[in-house]
Order: sequence, then structure tokens, then C-alpha cells
Amino acid sequence: MVNLMNIGFIGTGVMGGAIAQHFLDAGHELTVYNRTKSKTDSLVANGAKWVVTPKMLAEKTDVIFSMVGFPKDVESIYFSDNGVFAGLKPGSIVVDMTTSTPSLAERIDKEAHVQNSLALDAPVSGGDIGAQNGELTVMVGGDKPAYEKMLPLFETIGKRVNFFGAAGTGQHAKMANQIMIAGTMTGLTEMLVYAKKANLPLQQVLDTLSSGGADNWSMDNYVPRILQGDYTPGFFAKHFLKDLRIALDEADKMGLKLPATERAKDLYEIMVDQANLGDDGTQGLIKTYPAWNK
Amino acid sequence: MVNLMNIGFIGTGVMGGAIAQHFLDAGHELTVYNRTKSKTDSLVANGAKWVVTPKMLAEKTDVIFSMVGFPKDVESIYFSDNGVFAGLKPGSIVVDMTTSTPSLAERIDKEAHVQNSLALDAPVSGGDIGAQNGELTVMVGGDKPAYEKMLPLFETIGKRVNFFGAAGTGQHAKMANQIMIAGTMTGLTEMLVYAKKANLPLQQVLDTLSSGGADNWSMDNYVPRILQGDYTPGFFAKHFLKDLRIALDEADKMGLKLPATERAKDLYEIMVDQANLGDDGTQGLIKTYPAWNK
Repeated sequence: MVNLMNIGFIGTGVMGGAIAQHFLDAGHELTVYNRTKSKTDSLVANGAKWVVTPKMLAEKTDVIFSMVGFPKDVESIYFSDNGVFAGLKPGSIVVDMTTSTPSLAERIDKEAHVQNSLALDAPVSGGDIGAQNGELTVMVGGDKPAYEKMLPLFETIGKRVNFFGAAGTGQHAKMANQIMIAGTMTGLTEMLVYAKKANLPLQQVLDTLSSGGADNWSMDNYVPRILQGDYTPGFFAKHFLKDLRIALDEADKMGLKLPATERAKDLYEIMVDQANLGDDGTQGLIKTYPAWNK
Repeated sequence: MVNLMNIGFIGTGVMGGAIAQHFLDAGHELTVYNRTKSKTDSLVANGAKWVVTPKMLAEKTDVIFSMVGFPKDVESIYFSDNGVFAGLKPGSIVVDMTTSTPSLAERIDKEAHVQNSLALDAPVSGGDIGAQNGELTVMVGGDKPAYEKMLPLFETIGKRVNFFGAAGTGQHAKMANQIMIAGTMTGLTEMLVYAKKANLPLQQVLDTLSSGGADNWSMDNYVPRILQGDYTPGFFAKHFLKDLRIALDEADKMGLKLPATERAKDLYEIMVDQANLGDDGTQGLIKTYPAWNK
């Protein structure tokens, strides 16, 4: 049986909202905060309480989850005057599920310890479908005892939960994940552009490739969406670009060159910064290839 | 029941040898030719006949398969003085399974028709494991009636066989396949270099990524080999580079820019042309990343 907890959830967008709903469904007490209040409406209708600031949320709950957009949002939510750390009760556990920087994860970990609390970085993969179906992959770094206490919650939302070590290692594992996906996304995009230009039957190409050595999750999930003209975000392109920038920043700090990932970042920059398509899903990259739109 | 045929097979290397053996196992009569004769030894020991030239092979058989290295080898095998077309009997079917250029496939098709025969281009994917297990993916272009006659043979070696259209479309489909794999190979390589440098437990990273949105066949099959220091070819890096060059040539002819594939080609050029590792498998790309070797 799952121990019922008093949970706070900050950031109830596509992913966070689905995760928070699973916590509600499992019977936990839930308090929510989101910058755009309307995104908490369905959770509140299902029994969640709403608060005005992350600080108030921290004052009222024992376990605080966050899943927001960018590292600067994470920083604001935790460290601003109305942030989590301004209201945290000793003995709390904070869990940041945002894909953010390993260094920020370490800073949150440090401040949590100062406040006699524990912290985890726990980014996820699996996109909107994974979040809705409770089949995310959760990559965790931070305090092992906190991990063990949170495991039943992680198992509510994830089919695979892995602990990687000290604070920041969950984020590093997520960066490894995004570097892999940079390959599958650019690959499927250029594969499809080529196949269209060569006048191949695209559905048959997909069926063929998915049965052999080219098979991958991104292709199986995003090519059907592309073929239907569906560019709605499972995962926002602007967030993926953010992730690639973090990964390449981290690589740079470690003295690593990653030329293929660098190229993928350049391509997503064209999509997000030049073509202004950051609110599309990552599959929208193909729109920036002129041959696709003809 | 499979109609027993009199088959010739040219090019009995890692892939071709495994395919030819499946034809033998299915009870067909088999005649083999390979530039390096020793690579036909095990097939001959199992009942195949050996001939000195592709021309002699064509004279003695009704159905001629070829799977060699490069388009120039294909050209030589078919069009040289001792080549297939110098000995082809009317009513034959020629099937080139080499990954080669769409334009060469069209040229073979044209010459086969001149000689009252039929031709197919039928490149495969699935690597050495797929060939050994008879689980290749076969991508076929050319004469539909020839395709229908060859289908029982293709089904002996492939779990998925697809007909794409006119001569050259099998090759185009294979190019789409290789463009996709360029993404998975560069992605898994840089993912693993990053994870190692960040001191993550690599097996656990693999287990985690393979359960989520980053999952792909290349990662599942090649990362375990890399972690064991196994760079033996499932698929030769030099052949993969050849494929990427064909794909980018074809893209160029069609007026397409494929920047991610271009970058992958540049990286495989470093591996094959500069580091001289073309006889390694495609997973050997990681050896060209300095951080991996420390």
C-alpha cells in the first residue's frame, strides 16, 4: 500500500499536470501552484487545493514536486522571496522534475540540507503520452533516503525509476537521454524529407524501417504524427532546444566536443529562434526543411 | 512449398555468406563466386559449387544474387568482360542486394531487359545478426513479376519484405534507412561519451534510456558491444560511410540539404579516412572521441 502524503506540485503544464493527476488518483492530498492559474483548473476540479505562491505551497505540504520550463524558472520557484525555500518546513523533501542543469540541482540540494530537508533531481522522459499513461522513465539523483521515501510516488507515474547517485546525476542521465534523442529526431526528420523527395510511399517506408536496424521510439511515435500534419507538442521544441543547450554547456565544461549534438542544436535553433516554431512539438523540425513543405 | 531453384550467389562475405547459406539450407541448388575464394569455403563444404567468374556463374544458373561492397564492385560484377551480363541466359532474374546507387540499379534493370531478363534491386538491413537469423528487412525495387517470383527466397532470409516500385526505389528506401541510422549511431556515440565523462553508471544509463523515448535498435545492439570493447563489424564502417555518401549524393541531385546526415558523414570520414578504422563495425565511431579512450 502507498503511504498517503501531503504533496505540493508546482508547474501543472502538459507533463506536470498529468503527473499531478496521477498523485491525486492515488489518493494523496494535493496542493498546486502554476504561474498561469487556469492550468490548475482541472486538478482543482478533481480535489486539489490552489495556492498563490510556491512559498505558501511549501508551508502547507511535506513533499514538494516541481516541473517547470527553464532553469531560470526553477531558480525563481525555489530561491525567490515567494519561493519554496522561503516557506520550507524542516523535514521536507523537494523533488525537481524539470530538466535543468546539474549545477542548479546541486545548489537546491545544498540549500535543502541547510534547511534540514532533503532534495532530489528527478527529470523524466516519455513525453505527454508517457505522463498520461503513468509510463514515464524517471532519472533520479540526490539523497538516497529521500529517493527511497519517494519511490512509491515515482512508481505511480513511471514504469522505470532509476537512482544514479549524488545530486545532479539525475540531470546528467537526462542529458544523456536528450543527446540520444537529438540523434533520433534529426535522423527521422532527414529520413522522411529524403523519402518524400524520392517519391517513396511514406507509410511503407515507416513500416519497413521500424522492423529493422533503423527502428526507434521517436520514429515510431512522431512519424505518424508528422504524416497526419500533427505538430502539437508531446514535447515542446523550445524545451528540447533548452535541453540541448544545457547538454552542450555541460559537455563544454567537461572539455567534450559533441559535433552531432551541436549540429542538432543548430537545427533546433533554426526552428525555434528563426522560424519561431518553439511552441510546436519536436517533430516540427521537419517544417524547416524547404523540400517538406512543397 | 518453396519451388527449388538454381541460384547463383556473388559475394559471400559476412552478410552474403549468411544469406547464401539460408538458400542452401532451404534446399536450393547453389553456385557461388567471391573475389576472395576462401570466403566461399564453408558454403562449398555444405554443397555449393564454385565458379571462377561471374560470367560462368550466370551461364550456369537461373537466378543471380549479388551482395558485394561498393557500387564500383557491382558495376564490375555485372558489366565487365567476365561479368554477369556477359553470360546471362534469357529469362534469368538478377537481384542486386548490395546497397548501391539508384542510378546503377536503373542501369542494371535496363541491361537485363535488353537481354530478355528481369532485374531487382533488393538491399537489406538488419546486419550480421539479422542475416544469420534470417530476419533481415528486404527493400525491393524493379520488376513486379520478378519480385513475385523471388518472394519465397526473400522470405527465407527476411522477416519483412517490401516492394517499393520501379528500379532504384529499393535503393532509395535503403538510403532512407541509412539516414535514420546515421542519427541513431551518432546519437548513441555522443550519449555514451557524455555519460562516461559525467561518471554515470553506463549499464544503468543504457537500461534507463532503452525503456523510454530514447530507445532505438542501434543503442540496444551496439552499446553492449561497445561496453565489452567489441568493435568487430556487424556492419563495416567503410560500407556505412559509402552508404552515407550515396545518400548525400542522391540528396544533392534532388536539390536537398541534409545537415545532420552531412555531419554524420563527416564523423564517419574521420573514423574511416583519418583514423583508418573502416574495417571496424559502425560502433567503432566512438573510438574517434578522445574522451572515450581515456
